[in-house]
Amino acid sequence: MKTGKLIGIGLGPGASDLITLRALRHLHTLPVLAIPRPNPWTPSLAFRIIKEHLLTDNGQEHLFLEFPMSRDPEILIPAWTKAFAAIRSRLEAGLDVGFVTQGDPFVFSTFIYVYESLKADIPGLDVEMVPGVSSINAVPNVAGRPLVDGQERLAVIPATYGIEDLRSILRSFDSVVLMKVSSIMPQIVQVLEEENLLECSVYVEKATTEDQRIIHDLRSIRNDRCVYFSMVVVTKKHRNGILRGDAPKSEREALHVQ
Amino acid sequence: MKTGKLIGIGLGPGASDLITLRALRHLHTLPVLAIPRPNPWTPSLAFRIIKEHLLTDNGQEHLFLEFPMSRDPEILIPAWTKAFAAIRSRLEAGLDVGFVTQGDPFVFSTFIYVYESLKADIPGLDVEMVPGVSSINAVPNVAGRPLVDGQERLAVIPATYGIEDLRSILRSFDSVVLMKVSSIMPQIVQVLEEENLLECSVYVEKATTEDQRIIHDLRSIRNDRCVYFSMVVVTKKHRNGILRGDAPKSEREALHVQ
Repeated sequence: MKTGKLIGIGLGPGASDLITLRALRHLHTLPVLAIPRPNPWTPSLAFRIIKEHLLTDNGQEHLFLEFPMSRDPEILIPAWTKAFAAIRSRLEAGLDVGFVTQGDPFVFSTFIYVYESLKADIPGLDVEMVPGVSSINAVPNVAGRPLVDGQERLAVIPATYGIEDLRSILRSFDSVVLMKVSSIMPQIVQVLEEENLLECSVYVEKATTEDQRIIHDLRSIRNDRCVYFSMVVVTKKHRNGILRGDAPKSEREALHVQ
Repeated sequence: MKTGKLIGIGLGPGASDLITLRALRHLHTLPVLAIPRPNPWTPSLAFRIIKEHLLTDNGQEHLFLEFPMSRDPEILIPAWTKAFAAIRSRLEAGLDVGFVTQGDPFVFSTFIYVYESLKADIPGLDVEMVPGVSSINAVPNVAGRPLVDGQERLAVIPATYGIEDLRSILRSFDSVVLMKVSSIMPQIVQVLEEENLLECSVYVEKATTEDQRIIHDLRSIRNDRCVYFSMVVVTKKHRNGILRGDAPKSEREALHVQ
């Protein structure tokens, strides 16, 4: 029997109408959808996005899989092994399996582990990725902050990576997207304040969902512990234009079309 | 009369089924679509994506606007002024205008200039952005290269920015997306070779379109002049895992779930 195909389906940032037509076609036609959730008692964000699009009575299997929010290998490894085995059994039964994932399949997504593990385990496995709208794009859009343009440079970093690194990245890049800011907002606000970048910064949580929250004055939440799906976007917009950063000033000013 | 609303509509990377359901709804219902093109003789990439989705006989205006591929203000300013005025006249006639744009409206997009100019000109202008799948996401997906994960850091830079800067960014970031590589492939390949990163690099042009081309061995195109819509993605994947980069090695190895 021919092994089934593994399809990583990006669902976009949260709003159910920000999925692509290609994702929708897969949701309607695949025999198995693998749906990640942290545990059986927490609603799956991916499922929240897709549920209104699912057809009924088409025999599609909804395979909920647990991916615990933990860094402890003793918790992760058994859960992941179980999840990978469940997908593998469907593939080996000749069924195509769509693994749905919020955002894009290849940006900070559980699908990356599924993909790498199953590709290693099943030689010649047929895979397909359906790119999705990433929160890296959705957040600047909902906040009304153009992200990069012309010769500008963008850095996307998990904020927990290190505060001193953050300072040097803020100085070297035109725009910076800070992911996973939830636990260290006080430090982030302090660095942005010292670098004189608070005016260029915006905080967004749960972008495009009904719980979306946009905070332009980061001082007002400096002591808060924020939710997991939250980001800070810094856009300096110093260069501002299609011309090269090294263009003569007069030429660059000429481009401020009225 | 109430001024119309300006809507920036991201169309995704090129395939017409990678637009979102929200974008499709706007294509079906807006009275005016503004469609950028470099000149009247070159087909509009945005139009190529939307044309199969457009309804006929609904009276929708397709307003083609010229945005020349030039850095010369004497060419750009008159063309842009004309384009902005054409959109403004529809808005002031109370019509909602959708400006369609390949990729995402706020990432290296002409829409950023439209947005900033019209917002400055029309106080209180109502605007909406529909985020799209960016080529920053589409390219790693079609190339089968997971982009960022765990504690990894991503830089997105126009390759023309500077070769020396490129070297230091390649050393500091886990993944690097090089945009606009067309004219400087020889220099890029040389730097990647010297940094021992050729194996981690892939070149993709016109991702997700029928003209898509994926080159895994960059040496084979080192002397080519490539097309405008081309990118190089470098993914080192040194850290590889959900655990922090500073986790003990034994703990990190434990995470290579079999």
